[in-house]
Amino acid sequence: MEFASDNASGAAPEILAAVMAVNAGSAPSYGTDASMERVRALVRETFEAPEAEVYLVATGTAANALSLACHCPPWGIVYAHENAHVEHDECGAPEFYIGGGKIRRIAGADGKLTPEGLRAAIAETPQGFVHGHQRGVVTLTNVTEAGTVYTPAEVAALTAVARDFRLPVHMDGARFANAIAATGASPAEMTWQAGVDVLSFGGTKNGCLGVEAVVLFDPAKAWEFELRRKRGGHLFSKHRFLSAQMEAYLEGGLWLRLAGAANAHAAALEAAFRASPEAELIYPRNANMAFATLPRARHRALQAAGAHYYYWPGEPAPEGPDGERLGARFVTSWATTEDEIEAFAKALAAPL
Amino acid sequence: MEFASDNASGAAPEILAAVMAVNAGSAPSYGTDASMERVRALVRETFEAPEAEVYLVATGTAANALSLACHCPPWGIVYAHENAHVEHDECGAPEFYIGGGKIRRIAGADGKLTPEGLRAAIAETPQGFVHGHQRGVVTLTNVTEAGTVYTPAEVAALTAVARDFRLPVHMDGARFANAIAATGASPAEMTWQAGVDVLSFGGTKNGCLGVEAVVLFDPAKAWEFELRRKRGGHLFSKHRFLSAQMEAYLEGGLWLRLAGAANAHAAALEAAFRASPEAELIYPRNANMAFATLPRARHRALQAAGAHYYYWPGEPAPEGPDGERLGARFVTSWATTEDEIEAFAKALAAPL
Amino acid sequence: MEFASDNASGAAPEILAAVMAVNAGSAPSYGTDASMERVRALVRETFEAPEAEVYLVATGTAANALSLACHCPPWGIVYAHENAHVEHDECGAPEFYIGGGKIRRIAGADGKLTPEGLRAAIAETPQGFVHGHQRGVVTLTNVTEAGTVYTPAEVAALTAVARDFRLPVHMDGARFANAIAATGASPAEMTWQAGVDVLSFGGTKNGCLGVEAVVLFDPAKAWEFELRRKRGGHLFSKHRFLSAQMEAYLEGGLWLRLAGAANAHAAALEAAFRASPEAELIYPRNANMAFATLPRARHRALQAAGAHYYYWPGEPAPEGPDGERLGARFVTSWATTEDEIEAFAKALAAPL
Amino acid sequence: MEFASDNASGAAPEILAAVMAVNAGSAPSYGTDASMERVRALVRETFEAPEAEVYLVATGTAANALSLACHCPPWGIVYAHENAHVEHDECGAPEFYIGGGKIRRIAGADGKLTPEGLRAAIAETPQGFVHGHQRGVVTLTNVTEAGTVYTPAEVAALTAVARDFRLPVHMDGARFANAIAATGASPAEMTWQAGVDVLSFGGTKNGCLGVEAVVLFDPAKAWEFELRRKRGGHLFSKHRFLSAQMEAYLEGGLWLRLAGAANAHAAALEAAFRASPEAELIYPRNANMAFATLPRARHRALQAAGAHYYYWPGEPAPEGPDGERLGARFVTSWATTEDEIEAFAKALAAPL
Repeated sequence: MEFASDNASGAAPEILAAVMAVNAGSAPSYGTDASMERVRALVRETFEAPEAEVYLVATGTAANALSLACHCPPWGIVYAHENAHVEHDECGAPEFYIGGGKIRRIAGADGKLTPEGLRAAIAETPQGFVHGHQRGVVTLTNVTEAGTVYTPAEVAALTAVARDFRLPVHMDGARFANAIAATGASPAEMTWQAGVDVLSFGGTKNGCLGVEAVVLFDPAKAWEFELRRKRGGHLFSKHRFLSAQMEAYLEGGLWLRLAGAANAHAAALEAAFRASPEAELIYPRNANMAFATLPRARHRALQAAGAHYYYWPGEPAPEGPDGERLGARFVTSWATTEDEIEAFAKALAAPL
Repeated sequence: MEFASDNASGAAPEILAAVMAVNAGSAPSYGTDASMERVRALVRETFEAPEAEVYLVATGTAANALSLACHCPPWGIVYAHENAHVEHDECGAPEFYIGGGKIRRIAGADGKLTPEGLRAAIAETPQGFVHGHQRGVVTLTNVTEAGTVYTPAEVAALTAVARDFRLPVHMDGARFANAIAATGASPAEMTWQAGVDVLSFGGTKNGCLGVEAVVLFDPAKAWEFELRRKRGGHLFSKHRFLSAQMEAYLEGGLWLRLAGAANAHAAALEAAFRASPEAELIYPRNANMAFATLPRARHRALQAAGAHYYYWPGEPAPEGPDGERLGARFVTSWATTEDEIEAFAKALAAPL
Repeated sequence: MEFASDNASGAAPEILAAVMAVNAGSAPSYGTDASMERVRALVRETFEAPEAEVYLVATGTAANALSLACHCPPWGIVYAHENAHVEHDECGAPEFYIGGGKIRRIAGADGKLTPEGLRAAIAETPQGFVHGHQRGVVTLTNVTEAGTVYTPAEVAALTAVARDFRLPVHMDGARFANAIAATGASPAEMTWQAGVDVLSFGGTKNGCLGVEAVVLFDPAKAWEFELRRKRGGHLFSKHRFLSAQMEAYLEGGLWLRLAGAANAHAAALEAAFRASPEAELIYPRNANMAFATLPRARHRALQAAGAHYYYWPGEPAPEGPDGERLGARFVTSWATTEDEIEAFAKALAAPL
Repeated sequence: MEFASDNASGAAPEILAAVMAVNAGSAPSYGTDASMERVRALVRETFEAPEAEVYLVATGTAANALSLACHCPPWGIVYAHENAHVEHDECGAPEFYIGGGKIRRIAGADGKLTPEGLRAAIAETPQGFVHGHQRGVVTLTNVTEAGTVYTPAEVAALTAVARDFRLPVHMDGARFANAIAATGASPAEMTWQAGVDVLSFGGTKNGCLGVEAVVLFDPAKAWEFELRRKRGGHLFSKHRFLSAQMEAYLEGGLWLRLAGAANAHAAALEAAFRASPEAELIYPRNANMAFATLPRARHRALQAAGAHYYYWPGEPAPEGPDGERLGARFVTSWATTEDEIEAFAKALAAPL
């Protein structure tokens, strides 16, 4: 019963097979491999964006930090939700790659920025005031850290605010596939058609070994991105092993099938929580993450039964009354099994 | 006939098999996987260094830049051979990670630093002079960019100079396996016993998909390294896929068998050059790279026969007299075949 | 009626005279001038700190950013009051000099950190969590941005919290003289005896042309500070012109006389506000700044009478009802005259 | 007999008087003072450049580093003479402000770059090669470190090379006044008319207390410069004290009179060296610096007579034969007196 994170899962068989297949013989290095050509074509087709440029890196932190650095000056502000991964989980990679910068935490229910909240935060940064940081870039996370999903209309409402201030917009799509699978929106609708300039398009959490695509819908920053990637040490010599993953991931819609499976498992978890008189959902369950509070005694029982997951928003005190309600995050992945879900539902329903 | 670079080769079957094998089930992420435990033990055993700390990254540039940043202040000088990879081929990654810094290019025959040259360069940097960069760190490359190999005694002579100035020493071992296979020295003799503080221990060029170990013989910098790796975006979530490569690489001495094969192929190339009245070796051939000059007409013939390789030290003018001598670099790898060598030797000996 | 800022004032006659006097003849450059020797001795005497090292720069932003960079790693957090100058008014200089970093804004009434607030903020930063920023340094501002003053006991209570987490403490003392004049504490009591490690000791706002001393009570960081100052471009060649200001400033207690005058002027302003039925003080008036709300109509009248000052916490809408209460900040300096105070009091009391 | 450096001199009376004069009353801070308005007008008039933007800082290192950072990306190369101040005497300030960068040292007789040398160095940097640093910016120093002066035609020949590669050109004019006084060229002829984009226009060494103007002939970078200046901690609050210096410096051609005097003193030194059978000039004496070799015994005698100067290119061994020839640098300034020159000439001619 693995619900700690989607990055605890392995790679999907199709991805592994592609890595095996690309291994034969020699290949040009540093991104000039034939598989990368196909990745480029597939991304452009998938996003209906024939001008887009696409680059591969191996981690989500690299994808985010490099993307932000290309769109924010060293003295710029990154406007982000207060729970954003770039603020809490990247050990300052954005500030490092930006060469300074400041992340402005913006509150918003259910892990989401609101147009009003975003507008207020940007407007609060004085214009033409040399003493302060300057307006830099807006970043959205979809699926959010709270497991909720922005619809294309919600994205468009936020990017419209950014446009009012002439700011570029980045989307952290570590779980982009889950957001697409959840909404049924097209990749284009969710991104450039909704005003997104650059996307960190995750593969790792959704069945790859380790690959993220950065999609630049406006190719003007392409060469800068290449230079930043190289000097960050993120250009792979045997690049075909990144390309092959992404190619197999996109080919025939595998990415959406994997994400769809993960989302379905989380929906089943949600159903189990709704069926439990003890459980209370914290956020709407939109994609592959469910957040719920449970009595401390129930947590103990679930863990004794073999369930892995993290408390939310943080680790509670080790001791406390049995009835104390504690929040937790439950993440499913392409690799979650129905057995796991069933076992969890059973443990959740079992008498204490 | 692939002699362009050892990074044009794929991954060895044992490495791929290990990646497959580690895929099953879920695993803790971010370096806490069980395979990493075994890697740590194997590295300590291989280097006879029970205190050493070891971290994995996916590229040689990351390994070098992170290692140097841990051992050089932002205002420090990196003393390096004038042909060093850190100076020419990393797009400023060392300066980026160091946060400033300056690379001092030091001349030396056959791609090697000499103790005299190193001493003079360090001594030239004034001590206690606030107006200039400060003495920072020494970096050696073994195998060198010229394909030559430092013996442990040569390494020790250089680190002794560094010690005289109390400077730490980094070894760029992108082809460390080839150096060990070439000299028969033990990994310990070549590194910490010879005064090396930190090693970039390459796997990628020698049969892995993409993994490099950073070995800190003095563990004092371990936590700093972890933080620098994370904020550089180089900590893998599905870290087991790095660990598995390195584990299989070290297990049973695979790394040395692969490097031994590559070296043997280069020795066969060397023999072919020596047998040719046209060829002239540029540097002593010590490991898996041979450098030779040939008449322009011979280059044309070799390339027409399907040989891939780079000119050295750079691309010549496209046109020139047939007899003009042009240098080139020929790199072999674990994946080079005897057929390739034979075909090359034949093309080299064929009448023009 | 100049109450916009103490940096709108000129230099005190004694300071100017010292600059004139030091001009004669040639002098060693870059901080080796004889006047700097005397400054060092005077600072050590003034602070009863014979081991302290002291360096001069020309701006408060430089003093703060260099001090913080010496005490915070590039991945560290600067714990500061939410209104701190380092957060709002230095265009990212701290992040630039630190080489990344993050400023954590901590709320606190009257511009002051509380031990509880500080402790909670530090404790919230997880220890040994490689994914996040690390605990770095604590910075206090005295006089605060709200014009209030920490007593030595309050400082000690805050540094005790920092000590519990083994964090160093910086004091931004752009108005340190006003804090000392206000409390009657000795410089030692307010700094190292209360647990402060490094002080930005301001001269500019209090009668100098442009000079700030950085006092390192623990000299271990001295050489690093010198290097950071130089590579920041803050080491003056004709350094005597900085030294002479600071020497005259400290000599015979001029700094305290000037600050005492400024504080007295602000006390007179406070009295005027207290005498007015319209005015309401926002924060306790401790030093040379008074904050008060007044009806919009009164602001108009004051400005029409020639009073210069800034609204607080920010510029209000240009239009609004006469009775609308708007906050403002009134800063006095050594150069404020009794005439100005009288004229202001009169304008405040005049019928609208 | 002060010939160590022009920064050992004090400030000219006119400059000091202007500082005194500007002190009266309150003034807007941070560069909005009335004197700065006049500086802007004077610079534009002096350089016949009505569009130019001008900013003041207090040190030459700040002027250079900020100027270069505005014209070179973090992965760019600064092409400079091998003796340049930015390479040897700024403790990495250019790399710090650029955020990486690399200075390429280019050889050239008499401290001067040649068009051929510059072209070769730039051409050697591969274009579109993601693995290496990229072409960034060209910097010239006038007066050079060897005391020689580029004519406008020589400057134009170098900037023409830069233009061929579409690179911007910076001039380090710490001694710009001396270069203008030496050549009689107009400031416009020496800078923008000759292809210079940005100038560090020195005041400090030539009679100011501490002020340098950065002149951006293309104002497109103006706002970026302002932000970089502020976050570098180089924006003065009591900015009028910088403005007043520069205003007085430019007013009525004072800067050229001061530099002309310094140059004339150096010409007199040159004459003394030419009259001595022992002395040999190292470089042509063009401005306010003379370089000469003398027997060790003569150096001893000069120093015994009270002459201050530095050996060149570095400090020799403390002991050696009397006849050993040692180089030295002799710098004059606006403050040098005829008595000093006479005394020196006498000591040079005296029997040993």
